Amino acid sequence: MDPRVKAAMEPFLGESFGNPSAIYAAGRRAKEAIAEAREIIARALGSRAEEVIFTGSGTESDNMAVLGIARAYARFCPEFIVGRKAELGGTRGHVITSAIEHHAVLNPVQHLQKEGFTTTVLPVDEYGRVTPVAVAGALTPETLLVSIMYANNEIGTIEPIAAIGKAIREWKKAQGRGVNDPPFFHTDACQAAGYLDVSVQNLGVDLLTVNGSKIYGPKGTGALYVRRGIKIEPLVFGGGQEQRLRSGTENVAGIVGFAEALRLVHEEREAECARLTPLRDKLIAGIIRDVPKVVLNGHPTERLPNNANLSLLDIEGEAVLLYLDEYGISAATGSACDSASLEPSHVILALGRPYEYAHASTRFTLGRKTSREDIDYVLETLPGIVQKLRSISPVHIEFGEKEACPPDRQARGMAKAFVDMGRPHWEKSIKHKTCPDTLT
Amino acid sequence: MDPRVKAAMEPFLGESFGNPSAIYAAGRRAKEAIAEAREIIARALGSRAEEVIFTGSGTESDNMAVLGIARAYARFCPEFIVGRKAELGGTRGHVITSAIEHHAVLNPVQHLQKEGFTTTVLPVDEYGRVTPVAVAGALTPETLLVSIMYANNEIGTIEPIAAIGKAIREWKKAQGRGVNDPPFFHTDACQAAGYLDVSVQNLGVDLLTVNGSKIYGPKGTGALYVRRGIKIEPLVFGGGQEQRLRSGTENVAGIVGFAEALRLVHEEREAECARLTPLRDKLIAGIIRDVPKVVLNGHPTERLPNNANLSLLDIEGEAVLLYLDEYGISAATGSACDSASLEPSHVILALGRPYEYAHASTRFTLGRKTSREDIDYVLETLPGIVQKLRSISPVHIEFGEKEACPPDRQARGMAKAFVDMGRPHWEKSIKHKTCPDTLT
Repeated sequence: MDPRVKAAMEPFLGESFGNPSAIYAAGRRAKEAIAEAREIIARALGSRAEEVIFTGSGTESDNMAVLGIARAYARFCPEFIVGRKAELGGTRGHVITSAIEHHAVLNPVQHLQKEGFTTTVLPVDEYGRVTPVAVAGALTPETLLVSIMYANNEIGTIEPIAAIGKAIREWKKAQGRGVNDPPFFHTDACQAAGYLDVSVQNLGVDLLTVNGSKIYGPKGTGALYVRRGIKIEPLVFGGGQEQRLRSGTENVAGIVGFAEALRLVHEEREAECARLTPLRDKLIAGIIRDVPKVVLNGHPTERLPNNANLSLLDIEGEAVLLYLDEYGISAATGSACDSASLEPSHVILALGRPYEYAHASTRFTLGRKTSREDIDYVLETLPGIVQKLRSISPVHIEFGEKEACPPDRQARGMAKAFVDMGRPHWEKSIKHKTCPDTLT
Repeated sequence: MDPRVKAAMEPFLGESFGNPSAIYAAGRRAKEAIAEAREIIARALGSRAEEVIFTGSGTESDNMAVLGIARAYARFCPEFIVGRKAELGGTRGHVITSAIEHHAVLNPVQHLQKEGFTTTVLPVDEYGRVTPVAVAGALTPETLLVSIMYANNEIGTIEPIAAIGKAIREWKKAQGRGVNDPPFFHTDACQAAGYLDVSVQNLGVDLLTVNGSKIYGPKGTGALYVRRGIKIEPLVFGGGQEQRLRSGTENVAGIVGFAEALRLVHEEREAECARLTPLRDKLIAGIIRDVPKVVLNGHPTERLPNNANLSLLDIEGEAVLLYLDEYGISAATGSACDSASLEPSHVILALGRPYEYAHASTRFTLGRKTSREDIDYVLETLPGIVQKLRSISPVHIEFGEKEACPPDRQARGMAKAFVDMGRPHWEKSIKHKTCPDTLT
């Protein structure tokens, strides 16, 4: 956490501990602090303050967007069904997402199937990109929500959010729908907020998720931008805080710290991108140069400046991590949230790569404290670790196997997006770009 | 917030900032800290560690209990409907609560009506007590959950939780139901945790809510005890943290601080009760002695040692608060969460008292820093404020009107529990103890 963030939080962890809903002076101070934090977030997002809802995490914001839109605009909702019941057919509504989303989006989308909604999980190309054409092709009159992440947490690929937003708006226009009619467009910008433009105007999104812990802010904080004119059903009901959308006494210190963190990354992100991009490229180029049988996961240029994800074939990513950790290098494989599971990354599989590539994936995340010396240190350390692990590895997969992209593997990659709750579900309606025979 | 709590959180607000799901060393340290916090909470509740789910607030815990049980055991749930569909009749299930619950329980219960559940809101006696007999009388074969708070946040009344738990268990036994069959029993112990025994064994509850901000811990923290063998449906879906019941990166600092806060109040609560009870009684007796036309709200003895709630007739509670605030005295009227609304307290109305009594209610909450001198200062200050406000007040209600308890007022008191979302709903099946003609 940024020490400046902690300093901003400090007063609200001690003396200024009023309940923002209370009338007495300490309560009013807390209320003012929240109002100011909301203004700061709104400035970073280019939105109105009242369009910012504070939550307890990025996951909660994503769930609020996915479940909140679907439930609010589902066909039992009188405002939506009048004159449209036939159009809606036998489902309560339809939701579109992509195969590389975080589970904070994929799992609520899957849950909506239990509630009577239909879902489409769009495939991605070999770099992990969703195309605006694929999104437009999946829209139906019943579609309530499209949720596509701004940048992927595992492979760093940046999605063409503005172009997807434009495609959705054009489709709505052609259908004679207004801006306040579904479908709405949500993006999870948790990974992007530290490095990319998160102006909701420029992106053309209706809902956007940001959180604190990815931007040197406090854990347990997040926000959801909800454009004025759009309804969402709350996840929790109670005292009516956050415009009745997120009840519960506000986490004042967390909110103040989160706003300060977003303000700081908003101010510093251009300089930080300029500093990190060459370091990232040096790291990637160095690993590819010094370690044999390595594949970069994600897009070579359209990727976050802090992300390097590579499959070091023939060894398990987890083994690499444990060795790196002994050398003081903290790396990851897949998403941190999935690290307790032995399942390979659904993101790597969705790229059309075999299981072995997913198991071999290792992610290096750069940050504010990452220096050129750190990159050199990783490049000195990693080749030896890989060589040692390979010497004891029983696995020797044929390099280049990824080009083959056997149909069953690709299908498994898509299905992996939806197996978390034990019941695989995925739609086959969209042809996959790189493996056209797979999903028809 | 207790400085000792802040000290416990300190490492996790700076250096030790790993993601507890990550494999590297900082992540493992965070994971261990959460495991230790869970053990601490479990010791205070007399439960197993794995029965403790960390959440973002007391409100979230309450919603998770109410919505989570109802949705998990609703009649579409195969485990529950087999052979029981006829028994369940036309509803997805039935939930019982009381008219004096916090909105964090009342509002999700009301929301369940939209999802096809039926609900019963039990009335209370003139002291705000729910009787075990009333609970048992409201149970039906369809009942999935009973949620009765341990101690009320506005009037401090302590509910007979152990006796209600016993009545529910006896009913289940008579029906041939096992402990892992519904109905289940939830209590919101947020107000109680600082002063009363919260052993889930002694209370005989299946689910119990505690939070941080009421016990000198951090805001934005809470926990739900869920007895082993009971299912709940999550409110949010994602990375699968907290045994898949509450996804989202854990708020490590908040969790550690919350556990330390609960540990401290658990250790110190007996001494603190012994210190505060005479102070509370001195305050109540002093106000009744020195201010005319005053009524105590809540039970005279079965009340929290830190709560004094009195209706100072003929004046608005809010006016009193603003004057007190100028003298450096922080008080409240109704619940802090409701203070933005002009609606009178649903809790005071549920006692069978008129609107005017509710508007005139003023709550003094004692705490660790409250001394005998503070009580003396309030007793010196308050009579003059009341006199001044009464001299300009146009209201002069007849003292003793509460005894009359006009039927329509009582009915309004009950209905108030459920008007928050604009649609009053309440059941009339239970006779009210003090006003028997009102609700039949």
